Formats: sequence, structure tokens, C-alpha cells
Amino acid sequence: MILSALLTSVAINLGLCLLFFTLYSILRKQPGNVTVYAPRLVAEGKVKEGGQFNLERLLPTAGWVRKAWEPSEEEFLSNAGLDAFVFMRIFIFSLKVFTFGGIIGMCVLLPINYLGTQLKDESDFQHKSLDSFTISNVNNGSNRLWIHFSAAYVFTGVVCYLLYYEYAYISSKRIACFYSSKPQPHQFTLLVRGVPIPPGSTCSETVERFFQEYHPSTYLSHSVIRRSSRLQNLTADADKMYKKLTRLKSKSDAPQSQRRDGLFGLFGRKVDLLDHYERRLGDLEDNVRMEQSSVTAKEVPAAFVSFKTRFGAAIALHIQEGVNPTEWVTEQAPEPRDVYWPFFTVSFIRRWISKLVVFVACATLTVLFLIPVAIVQGLTHLDQLETWFPFLTGILRLSVVSQVVTGYLPSLILQLFLSFVPPIMILLSSMQGYISLSQIQKSACTKVLLFTIWNIFFANVLSGSALYRVNVFLEPKEIPRVLAEAVPSQASFFIAYVVTTGWTTIASELFQLTTLLYNFISRTFSSNSDDDFEPPSIPYHSEIPRIRLFGLLGVTYFILAPLILPFLLVYFCLGYIIFRNQFLKVYVPKYETGGQFWPTVHNSTIFSLILMHVIAIGIFGLKTLPLASALTIPLPILTLLFNEYCQNRFFPMFKDYPAECLIKKDRADQNDHNMSEFYDTMANAYNDPALMPIRYSDRPNSNRDPLLHNSQV
Amino acid sequence: MILSALLTSVAINLGLCLLFFTLYSILRKQPGNVTVYAPRLVAEGKVKEGGQFNLERLLPTAGWVRKAWEPSEEEFLSNAGLDAFVFMRIFIFSLKVFTFGGIIGMCVLLPINYLGTQLKDESDFQHKSLDSFTISNVNNGSNRLWIHFSAAYVFTGVVCYLLYYEYAYISSKRIACFYSSKPQPHQFTLLVRGVPIPPGSTCSETVERFFQEYHPSTYLSHSVIRRSSRLQNLTADADKMYKKLTRLKSKSDAPQSQRRDGLFGLFGRKVDLLDHYERRLGDLEDNVRMEQSSVTAKEVPAAFVSFKTRFGAAIALHIQEGVNPTEWVTEQAPEPRDVYWPFFTVSFIRRWISKLVVFVACATLTVLFLIPVAIVQGLTHLDQLETWFPFLTGILRLSVVSQVVTGYLPSLILQLFLSFVPPIMILLSSMQGYISLSQIQKSACTKVLLFTIWNIFFANVLSGSALYRVNVFLEPKEIPRVLAEAVPSQASFFIAYVVTTGWTTIASELFQLTTLLYNFISRTFSSNSDDDFEPPSIPYHSEIPRIRLFGLLGVTYFILAPLILPFLLVYFCLGYIIFRNQFLKVYVPKYETGGQFWPTVHNSTIFSLILMHVIAIGIFGLKTLPLASALTIPLPILTLLFNEYCQNRFFPMFKDYPAECLIKKDRADQNDHNMSEFYDTMANAYNDPALMPIRYSDRPNSNRDPLLHNSQV
Repeated sequence: MILSALLTSVAINLGLCLLFFTLYSILRKQPGNVTVYAPRLVAEGKVKEGGQFNLERLLPTAGWVRKAWEPSEEEFLSNAGLDAFVFMRIFIFSLKVFTFGGIIGMCVLLPINYLGTQLKDESDFQHKSLDSFTISNVNNGSNRLWIHFSAAYVFTGVVCYLLYYEYAYISSKRIACFYSSKPQPHQFTLLVRGVPIPPGSTCSETVERFFQEYHPSTYLSHSVIRRSSRLQNLTADADKMYKKLTRLKSKSDAPQSQRRDGLFGLFGRKVDLLDHYERRLGDLEDNVRMEQSSVTAKEVPAAFVSFKTRFGAAIALHIQEGVNPTEWVTEQAPEPRDVYWPFFTVSFIRRWISKLVVFVACATLTVLFLIPVAIVQGLTHLDQLETWFPFLTGILRLSVVSQVVTGYLPSLILQLFLSFVPPIMILLSSMQGYISLSQIQKSACTKVLLFTIWNIFFANVLSGSALYRVNVFLEPKEIPRVLAEAVPSQASFFIAYVVTTGWTTIASELFQLTTLLYNFISRTFSSNSDDDFEPPSIPYHSEIPRIRLFGLLGVTYFILAPLILPFLLVYFCLGYIIFRNQFLKVYVPKYETGGQFWPTVHNSTIFSLILMHVIAIGIFGLKTLPLASALTIPLPILTLLFNEYCQNRFFPMFKDYPAECLIKKDRADQNDHNMSEFYDTMANAYNDPALMPIRYSDRPNSNRDPLLHNSQV
Repeated sequence: MILSALLTSVAINLGLCLLFFTLYSILRKQPGNVTVYAPRLVAEGKVKEGGQFNLERLLPTAGWVRKAWEPSEEEFLSNAGLDAFVFMRIFIFSLKVFTFGGIIGMCVLLPINYLGTQLKDESDFQHKSLDSFTISNVNNGSNRLWIHFSAAYVFTGVVCYLLYYEYAYISSKRIACFYSSKPQPHQFTLLVRGVPIPPGSTCSETVERFFQEYHPSTYLSHSVIRRSSRLQNLTADADKMYKKLTRLKSKSDAPQSQRRDGLFGLFGRKVDLLDHYERRLGDLEDNVRMEQSSVTAKEVPAAFVSFKTRFGAAIALHIQEGVNPTEWVTEQAPEPRDVYWPFFTVSFIRRWISKLVVFVACATLTVLFLIPVAIVQGLTHLDQLETWFPFLTGILRLSVVSQVVTGYLPSLILQLFLSFVPPIMILLSSMQGYISLSQIQKSACTKVLLFTIWNIFFANVLSGSALYRVNVFLEPKEIPRVLAEAVPSQASFFIAYVVTTGWTTIASELFQLTTLLYNFISRTFSSNSDDDFEPPSIPYHSEIPRIRLFGLLGVTYFILAPLILPFLLVYFCLGYIIFRNQFLKVYVPKYETGGQFWPTVHNSTIFSLILMHVIAIGIFGLKTLPLASALTIPLPILTLLFNEYCQNRFFPMFKDYPAECLIKKDRADQNDHNMSEFYDTMANAYNDPALMPIRYSDRPNSNRDPLLHNSQV
């Protein structure tokens, strides 16, 4: 890729971003879009939704930037929750890292690279290949490479310092949030699986007996889990039907309800509709009750067990309960709203097997995904395209077309394929037997991250230069050399990737095109979509891996092609302000893990550093500076030791809360007079929503939480 | 190696074994040797030591075999302890495995190997190379290899079944032993390290305050640890001096004490001796008291904390105590007699660094050790010896010499070098910050095991055929091929190794040559050695790796050279009866880990199986049967899955006791009226023996346990 192609790409994407921002600042002010651009505020009742088109609000303004910028960290934390706070720390951390890296890279490394003569690129500045700005252009054996060597050491040191600081900061926030939290059922409750039910006894009796025997002073109550997937479908149907009916009724009372009521009304028999729905709801209710009475017998050997104190729950959690470690397996319960009901009915051995199956499926998906990526790679090489599709030669020779094809199209297609991955990973994770959405998303986050690194970074690096080298990882000694040959040559692809995919996704995150279109269609064709309105939650499992990929690119290319860093800085700046805005106005947390996503971020950064070191070892070898190559070897070892220390120093705090905190919090509760009330609510907090009695006829609305399968958020 | 050389070696070693057995059965009946051959019975007071030479007891008998055979498993367990029981299960397990393997190997695989014609060994039976009995002799591409293939699957299945059975059996024994145990201080006590002492406070106060704050109902007492290595030396000196003095006194009272009292008396001034020693002891006592008063101030931020119940201790053990996970680090206390005092004064970060240093030292030792092994390897190749030392050619051409050199000498030299390894590994392990002898021995056991496998198995296999291939493990794809080429060619070396080293070490274990000589010398030259008599304990860290190495050889060579199996069976039969005898008569346990050595045995067996599979994959590839090679690949995967399951199913039981057991045991104690007495003794159980008040002048004898450094046992 030449410099002018990059500039074209930058111009196109800057234009796109500006367009998105302008449209956003106009559209967000239209009252009809308030459920798209401020659903959180609507849900909290701070902004009224609905209303008519308003001609005065058409001027684009940037007031939202100020509003997103203004809240302090503490305000943001109390407003958006710790998970959102941790998510924003990724941007702050990345900005710190790449500001430092950018200064060194642009002021020191880039001039050195450019002054080299290895590539003998004699073209003028505008047509210079981007490779002239990479380490490839530094002359072999040049002593200037020692500056790159020092830069690697200094950069690693700074990144490790920042990692340590962030880990310490976030873990202190985690503890502080725990201290300031109200009593919540999940702090007092465990999930117990693998209950060994003796013949002639029920699960409920067994659990009761066991915990009254071994935890008599702290045991409070339990609720056995039942196999209820069929029932869940039925109640979901009944719910839907009930909502439809309420809507219909309210319409028939109000004066405007005489008009045709949406798409459905176009085809339905108008007179019988109310009657017909009521009859169907009655049938459904009967079915649900019948199924409920039958499902009570379908006990699963698992139960939510609640304790009187947090410390009591922690005792039962941490000490192996039964003699057989595969029985009485305890696990901290998720928040009641976070429970993922459909899958967790599986025994120890079945969960173990499904983990294996999911592992194999994940690996297979990763391998098969290389095929579309390989096709996409073909598009980045114009000459290859011309040989494949000779009839396109004329078009491809046009300068604009060639620039679009090389600069923009490949990333877009790749992006399309990649958008299918997070839902698939969520599905796979949910099959692993996790009991909560948060755990499923956390597990899917790791899966998507590995997938992204392998299929975007490694597949591009290794297939762009040599597809046949997929088995390079079976020859560990060769890895540095192969990577050192392949990675710098893909620098221009990844710079373009940051500009196209990075900038565009972050701008479209703000613009929310699909939600906007959906909102527009539903408002135009059906006036009742607002009843189903539910504010979205952020899909951590797809956002974090994407952001971390850009972090990986930045760290990896820091010494190879520092030109990537300014573009990354733009990305992270935009991301910071846009996601702050989104958290304050759009996303409502579905659960609170207490910052448990940070260890994933930490580990992925360590991985990026090690990858950078391995490539540096290879590069110095290739550049015939074996001493620098050898002297780089301690760097990954030191980094791994640093990581090991961090794992010992901080990770335990992200797994469980220490005894000190639990006991202090329990003592504080003892003086609280509301605890007996809280115990009462806790006793019912973990009842399967599908098993709650339904009586639509009398109640104005169902007050059950929408806890069901919500994986595609 | 040819068949006749092997037979010579077998004959020599059988002769040696018989000689050892005969000598043993004669010498063990001599009353003077009772501290050598039945020190345990002496210590228990069942046999009186001392006495004169007895002419009537010179007939060799095999009564000891019957006596060692007779006790049932239960009797043996209650007599020798669970660790000894687990040790014996290694033999029982190995006997089961190799009886099955031996039947298949000798009846099916050996004839097939012998009937092959690949090696074209036309010599007569007696001069046939041992290679004719290995898989190397099977013709390439022969369908008979499918029998080897099936044998690998069947054998793996049987071994895994036996492993599962043993793990379940031993863990049930472990729980049963726990239930039947008396209250012991270490069940109620934790070691707490990294106590964060606030300024102006002492460690003792901090610990007291913390546990009274957070574990008020279960906390009993604590004893702070002090830096006392100087004091330990002083008290040891004082102890020695006191013993000498008592001996001297008793000698001067009794009539026979007028004769010269041993080596010392030969040179000492006879008149002043008593007076002189008493003065020196007085000085030492003063020093000790001075040091004791000064050491009280040298507190270390660590303490033994005792609880009222086992469950109370388990709670504090399993739940992270402080907010900072590197502070208030808890660990189950070892038995008081098992505490290793010198080293455990180190902080978290220092322990962490010393672990690293020890890891590096271990790796270095393993690498440097290859040099003597390479020299030893030279001795096994006669032709190489002749080129190195041309003047020896004449001698080496003698049939007897050549047979001794090839069959016996190499193993002996190797053995000599190896005998230095366990003490070194003990030293390294003790630097890692373990707090008990048992943990040090367990850690050293793993180290010695890895060392043995690498330096005996891999170094012989890879340097015997190609020393330059030490880096074969950096090319994972090549491993099966390289091993398949190298391992079968070393079959004869390892058969000889089993016969020489294996049989001889097991026979000399019975004969206890060094102890016998030491006993003889001390009895002859000094009549007072009995005062220092202390029954030995078994060095698990050197015995288990040795036995497991033979297990590894058996599993690995099962399909390659089944001829090794009968010799191994002899080894394990001898080992079973001899070690049973030793446990009943010789070794006194210094500690009781509750069978925690078994997981090491289990893991090493799994490793052997995987190694066998990898070699099989390579062999089938070399023998141009790629289908069999490919079909073997699932075998290691299935084995690893099996191992993973076992780790989940059994390993937690070997780490800690479950809540169910602890609470049941605590409840049983509540009805026991001796508990308050027990609590009193527990409060002083973990006092540093060096800090106990000494008053030699009044007391008849020091009643302190010899807890000090005992690594060379």
C-alpha cells in the first residue's frame, strides 16, 4: 500500500465518521429516536419518550461530547456500575500506553525507519510504500537497531507499570464497591450441584438435611431447581399473548384505538379479535398451570442454598462439602436477574463432557473460519484479483476503485463474517453449563478474543505471506523467524484495518444504525412497539475482544511500524468519549460482575507484549544483529514473571471477596433492622420465574423479571 | 548386547542377591545387629538390643519372608501408617500391571517379534542379539503390527482401570484413617505467614487481634515464630555436650566404666574430663539463655494459630483472610515433629523468588548432569572404549571382561552419580520455603522423579543414539519419530539396567550395608554409640522415583521389548516382600502425610503411558504402517482425559479433608472429656524447641524431640 492510498482511506473514513457524528447530533434530538439514543434515560424515567417531529432541532451540535466528558470517575462509577467503569479503564489504559508509545514511535523510531535504505524505495513521498516507514527499511546490521531494542525494553517496562497500577486501582475499586453495596441475595447464596439423593428421598429433603447438619448456624433456606424448559416456552407465549391483549384492550378504550392497529390488524378479523385472544390466553394459562404442577416432580439434583451471612456462604463455598468432590459442588450464585435458567440442569460428568465438546467445537470453528478469511485476503492483492477475474482488469485499474478495494473492502467483508462469531461463541459458552449470563459472556469474551487474535492477526499475518505455514506453531524454534518475516509485511494492511474497521465501528456504535432503522420501521408500521421496549445492555463479549485486538496491534507494531499508533490513538480517543456517552445514555447493565472482565484484559496485554518480544527476537535475528536478538530473550521471561506476580497479588481478589471484607460487611448488616425483611425476599429470589403462579385475569401486569435467554444482547 | 551377555549378567546378579539374602538371614539374628535390622522393634521396646556374639544362630533361614508376608493389609496399615501403606500399593499396583503386561508380552508380542526377519540376525540362539526380541525385528509394513497396536490399547485400558481402582481405594483409606485418628495438633492448627504488623505493634498482638476479630468463636491460641537459627546451633551443641556428660557420669558410677571409654578417651585428659565438660556445658547453657532472651525480640511475621475445631481451622485456611492476598497467607500446619524450623522465616515475595531460583537451579543441575552420563554411556560401547583407550584393547577382548563392562559397570557408575541427587534435591526443596520435612520430601520426590526420567531414560535414549538431539523437544512434530528410532535400540541397556541396578539396590536395601558397617565400626571402637541410636525413616524422595523409573521402563518397553517384563516382575516381587519387612522392622515414620505421595505415582504412570503412546505413534510410522500410527493418536488424548477426570474426582481429597469429615470428627470430639487437656498441650505443641527453657543440671535427660534438619535420611 502506498502513502496516498492510506491518505485516501483516512479521508473516506474521516468523512464517514463526521457524517455519523452530524447525523447523530441531529437525530438524537428527535423525540421519536429517544428510545434509540437514550433508552437508559427513558427506562430511568429521566426523559419522556414519544412525541412528534420537531423542525427546530435540526442543527448539529456537540453538546453530547461535553455531557459525556463531564461526569467524574466517581460519578460515572456510581451511575454506570463497576463493569462499565472497568470497560472505560481499558480505553484510559490504552490511551496512556499508546500516548507514551506514540511519542517514542513517531519522534524516535519512525525517523530512523524512514532514514534507512534497505528497501531502496526511490519513489517520491506521495507514492512511497508504507513499508518505508517500517523497521524493514532499516539497514541490516545497522547499529540504529539498538534504539529499537531499547525502545522495546522501555515500552515493556512502562506497560507493565501501567498494568500493575490499573490492576491495583481496579481491585481497590472492587473492594470499595463491595463495601458500599446493599445486601443482595447473590452475596448470601450458593448454587449447589451434584446433590446425591438417596433412594426414597427428594432433593429438597436431602439439601435441607445436609445443610442443617453441617451448617446449622448459618443455613437459611433453599430452592430446588426443576427442569422447566418446556414451561419456559409456554409462559413466554402466555406473556406475549397477555401483552397483546392488554394493548388491544387499552386501544379499544381510548379514542385513537379505533384505527387499524398495526400490521396484525390488517389481516385479523376485527370483531372477534379481543374475544379470540382472551380465549387463547385462557388456554395457555391452563397449559402453564398443568405443566407447572407436573414440573414440580421433575427435580434436578441442584439447588440454590441461601445463608444468613455472607461469610457463612463463603465457608460452604470454599470448603469441599462431601467426601466425593464431584458431589455437593458449590458455586457462588449469580444475581437473580443474571441467572441463565435453560441449561444448568447437568451433572458433573455431563458438564465435563460438554466442556470438552465445546472446546473441540471452538477449535473447529477457528480452523474452518480460515477459509473465508483466505478469500478476503485475495481481495487485498489487486494483481491476484486481476488474474482471478480478468474481466475486472479495466475497472480495477481505475485509481479510485483500486484504492477502495485495497483500502476498504477487505476489512468490511472480514467484519461481516466476524459479526457472526460472538453469537456463536455465546451459544457454545452457554452449552458449557454456566449458570449465569455474566459467566457465559465472560467465557465467550475469552473465546472471541482468542478467535479474533488467531483469525485476524495470525491468519492475516501468516496467510498474507504464506498460507501453508499454519503449522508454524508446531515448530517453536521457528516461530520468531517466521513471524519476523511475516508481521512487518502486513503493517499496511493493519494500518488500513485500524482506519477502516476501527474508526467506522466506533462511529457506528454511536450512530446505532440497525436500532435506528428498526425503531423507524416499527414506528412507521406499528404504533405499539413501545410496549416491548427494553433498554439494551452492552455486549462485553464482542466489544472487549475488538478493543483488545487494536491494543494487540498497537503493542505488536510499536517497534515494527509506529505509523499505526496515531491512528490507534484517534480510535481510543473516539472510543473513550463515545462509550462514556453510551454507558450514560444507552446501555443498562443486565448484571454486575464487580470488574471480573479486567483479568482478561490484563492477560491479553501480557500476551501482546510477549508476541512483540518474540517478533523482536526474530527481527533482530533477520537484521543480522544476533546480540540484540539474544539480549531480548530475558524480556519475555521477565514479563511472564511480572504476570505471575500480578496473578498472585491481584487475581484472588477478583475471584472471591476475602474473609475480612465479608465479616465486616456482615457485622454492618447486624445493626440493620431491615435484614429480616431482606431474608424474606431472599427466600424467593431464586425461584424459577417459569414456576411462579400466573393469574393474568386479575393482575394489571406480570411483574416477573425478563430473566430468560438473552444471549444476543 | 547378546543373549549370553544378558544371561551372564542375570547369573551374577542372582548370585549377588542370594548372597545378600543369606548374609541377611544370618546377620539379622546376631544380637549386635539388632539396631541395624530391627531398629523399629528396638525403639518400640519389642526387642532388646545389645548382647554378645551367638554361635548357634548361624544357619540361614527364610523366616523373615513369612513374617513380612503374614500381616494383612489392615494390620500393616495400622502398624506402619498410611504413607508406608501407599508405598506398598505402588508395588501391588506395579505387580498387577506387569503381570498382565508380562502375560501378553511374553505369550503374544515376544514370539511375533522373534519370528520377524527385519534385522536378519542369522546367529544361533545363544549369540542372538537382544534386538531380535524387540519390535525392531518385525518386518516393515507387516500386518502383525496390528497385534502390537491392539496390545497398546488393551494395556492402556487395563492400566487406567487399575489406576482408577487404586486412586479410589487409597482415598477411601485416607478418609478412614482420618476418621479413626486421635485429635492431633496439626489438624487444628494453621501456619499464618505475611502478617502485616502495623507500626508500634508486635506480631503476637497483631495475630491475636486479627483472629479474635474475625474468628472469635473458633480461635484458640497462637505462637509466633522467631528467627532462631543461631540458637538452634547452640542448643544442639549443648544437647550433645549434655549427652556426653551423662554417658561419662554413668560410666564413672558403673564398675566397667574404669576402662578407656572409646575413641575420645584415648586422647582426653582422664582426670579433668568430667569437670571440664561440666564447665563447658555451663558456659553453653549461659549462652543459650542469653541468646534465648535476645531472640524473643527477633519476631518473624508468621505464627502458628490454633483453633478449637478442625472445621474452624479449615475455614481460616480456605478463605482468603486479608484484602491483600499476599498477606495473612494461611497454610495447614504440619505435625509438630514434622516442622522444619530453619527456613520458614521468609516473606511472600522472598519465597516466590527463592522458588524461581530453585527452579533455575534444578534445570541447571539436570542439564549439567548429562556430562557424567555421557561418559558412562561411552563405557557401554566396547568399540568406543577401545578407540579411547587403545592399551585396554587386549583386556577388553576377554569375554568375561567385555561382558562385565557391557552388562554391569555402566549401571554401577551411573548409580554412584545418582546417589548424590536426592540430597541435593532435598536441599533445593528446603530452600523453597516449605515448612515441613514431609513437604520438602514430597517436593524433592517430584524433582528427583523428573530428574531420573530425564537423566536416565531420555539421556540414555537420546545420547546413546544421538547426543546432539537434546534439542529434539523443541521440535514437537519430530518427537515420535526420534523416540521411535532411539528407544528400541536401548532396550538391551535397560534390560541390563533392571537386572543390575534394580535387583542389586533392592537386595542391598534389605542388607543395609552402610548401616551395618557403621554399626560394626561404632560397636568396635566406641561402646557408647547406642545412646545416639535413632531408628531411620524411609527416604521416600529417593525410593519412589527409583521404583517409578522401573515402572516407566516397563510401560514404555511393553510393546517394544517385552523381554524386560519378567525381570521387572522379579524386581517388584522382591521389592514387595523386602519393603514390607523393612517397614515392619526397620523404618519408623517421621511424619504422616495421609497418603499424599499417591498423586505423584498416579501422574508418573500417566506420563509413562503417554510416552508409550508417542513412541508407538513413531514406531508404526517407521514401520510403514501409517494407518496404525494415525489410529494411535486418540490413545494419548483419551488417557489425558482419563487423567483429567481422576484429578477432578480424587485429587481434592488428597489436598484437604472435606467439611463433612471435619465436622463429624469435631462432633465426635465434643463428647470427649480429654479435649480441654488436649487444648492445653496444643498451646505448646508448636513452640520452637530451641526456645524451650533448658535446665540440664536438674533434669535427668532432655525430652525435646530431635526436630532439626534431617534431610539426609
